[in-house]
Amino acid sequence: MTRTPRTEDMPPRTEDRTRRTADLMPRTEDRPVTAIDARAHAWSPKTARARFRDGLAGPTAGVAAGHTQANLVAVPADWAYDMLLFCQRNPKPCPVLDVTDAGATSTVLADGADLRTDLPRYRVWRDGELVDEPADARAYWRADLVSFLLGCSFTFEWAPARAGVPIRHVEQGRNVPMYATGRACRSAGRLRGPMVVSMRPVPPEHLRAAIRESGLLPAVHGGPVHCGDPAALGIADLDRPDFGDPVALEDGDIPVFWACGVTPQAAVMASRPPVALTHAPGRMFLTDARDEQYRLVGID
Amino acid sequence: MTRTPRTEDMPPRTEDRTRRTADLMPRTEDRPVTAIDARAHAWSPKTARARFRDGLAGPTAGVAAGHTQANLVAVPADWAYDMLLFCQRNPKPCPVLDVTDAGATSTVLADGADLRTDLPRYRVWRDGELVDEPADARAYWRADLVSFLLGCSFTFEWAPARAGVPIRHVEQGRNVPMYATGRACRSAGRLRGPMVVSMRPVPPEHLRAAIRESGLLPAVHGGPVHCGDPAALGIADLDRPDFGDPVALEDGDIPVFWACGVTPQAAVMASRPPVALTHAPGRMFLTDARDEQYRLVGID
Repeated sequence: MTRTPRTEDMPPRTEDRTRRTADLMPRTEDRPVTAIDARAHAWSPKTARARFRDGLAGPTAGVAAGHTQANLVAVPADWAYDMLLFCQRNPKPCPVLDVTDAGATSTVLADGADLRTDLPRYRVWRDGELVDEPADARAYWRADLVSFLLGCSFTFEWAPARAGVPIRHVEQGRNVPMYATGRACRSAGRLRGPMVVSMRPVPPEHLRAAIRESGLLPAVHGGPVHCGDPAALGIADLDRPDFGDPVALEDGDIPVFWACGVTPQAAVMASRPPVALTHAPGRMFLTDARDEQYRLVGID
Repeated sequence: MTRTPRTEDMPPRTEDRTRRTADLMPRTEDRPVTAIDARAHAWSPKTARARFRDGLAGPTAGVAAGHTQANLVAVPADWAYDMLLFCQRNPKPCPVLDVTDAGATSTVLADGADLRTDLPRYRVWRDGELVDEPADARAYWRADLVSFLLGCSFTFEWAPARAGVPIRHVEQGRNVPMYATGRACRSAGRLRGPMVVSMRPVPPEHLRAAIRESGLLPAVHGGPVHCGDPAALGIADLDRPDFGDPVALEDGDIPVFWACGVTPQAAVMASRPPVALTHAPGRMFLTDARDEQYRLVGID
């Protein structure tokens, strides 16, 4: 089947979904960076960060290819232990790459970067409610914020792509679709929430390579959590993602689901810390790390 | 060369080692559990825990084969964030399998287990000094202790063993040798210290299998951190481990070093929290988890 994500084809919303996170937030309408500038895949991470600092604000799949992209969630120091424990207890959606000291605006992952300005777009949360989506977070920064940088599945797209696996959302110039699932994360202190997944359509003949190549990168979510029926994850309608854009499946494509670093945002929504600052879904932090650094060695 | 670890062969101590942790602690002289009872490899984890609760106190390599063994380090809640961050920043030596809530004596990893009694032997630390090595820790338990259970390299021995790799320390009826290296861990808050490694002699023809099979288990230290020259890790003399027993290399064996879950004990010694409770090196907590649960899938 060919699934075309045109609005007029969309069925009415299924009411039995436990979460309609999309209802709670505006959809940010930035075009993917690689659709705006075809050279973006060859940028250095430093160049990408400079462009984002200067205002470029779209989804970052394919940008500075081969470099590790990271999810951001920053919470007050009083919530940092709960967040770190939440990540430890849910390592598939929340693989921690770095945790800053309270108030720090830099990270060991990116030389000279400023976490307040160098992401394309941010989300600002108060008591679990989305209150702003700025391209610059300096007005919201606090001296007690501890920043968590988590692995992102954009990172592992290079590996299956190199093995010949088509990356449909990049082909279609869209953000990756993300869904809040019916699977609860293991809670930690005050933090709880559903696991969020990203979905990529994969032709059956490429399934093995997609599973293997992502599996070799456990620090950036690793292998998929599910292949096939979306209902098994409590996802009613692939055409209505909770975050990101719907993406068309081509004939025979199997929907493959990977744990997603937007999961802490769903936990922020469910658990309502007084303040949180995150990246906007799909608009990641570009680190200087190379994806190969996170690939398991000695396995081949 | 055949390396025999007889005392009279040992060279004098090299004074340029930065840490002589062995100087600071007694050597516990328990015989390995599998040397005391050859049936121990077939015990269930529940049986193993009951035997340890009843007083059996030796090293646990090979016990309840196929089940995951874990390092224990418990610190006051005030130190828990630093310890969790230390583990996150040093995932090779400190792969976290579970963190308990403060004061909890149970873990999701072992049904009905009591962390105060069910390990073979404990070490009790005050201000970084070893003060006791009891077989029962109830007298030292505190309501504010947060317990960290970390992956252990004993867990992955089954995989190379199944692939035909000889496990010399088991063959020789000894505890695995462990060494404090010259490599500093990344510090976290008040916690700092050297990386500790375990060493297994591996015949060259088995090297690839040993690297691959352990590499597929990143939650229990993963692949080795070094193969070959001990001096590259700042280890002056293989015959004088800082923890555990010396183990003889057979002709042609290559010393292979894996990051070790005793690393937090070295951090306790270097960083001096007021109180800490750990397992005694080599005397691990037997969980109900199966090693296969931690093995990456979809790679073969």
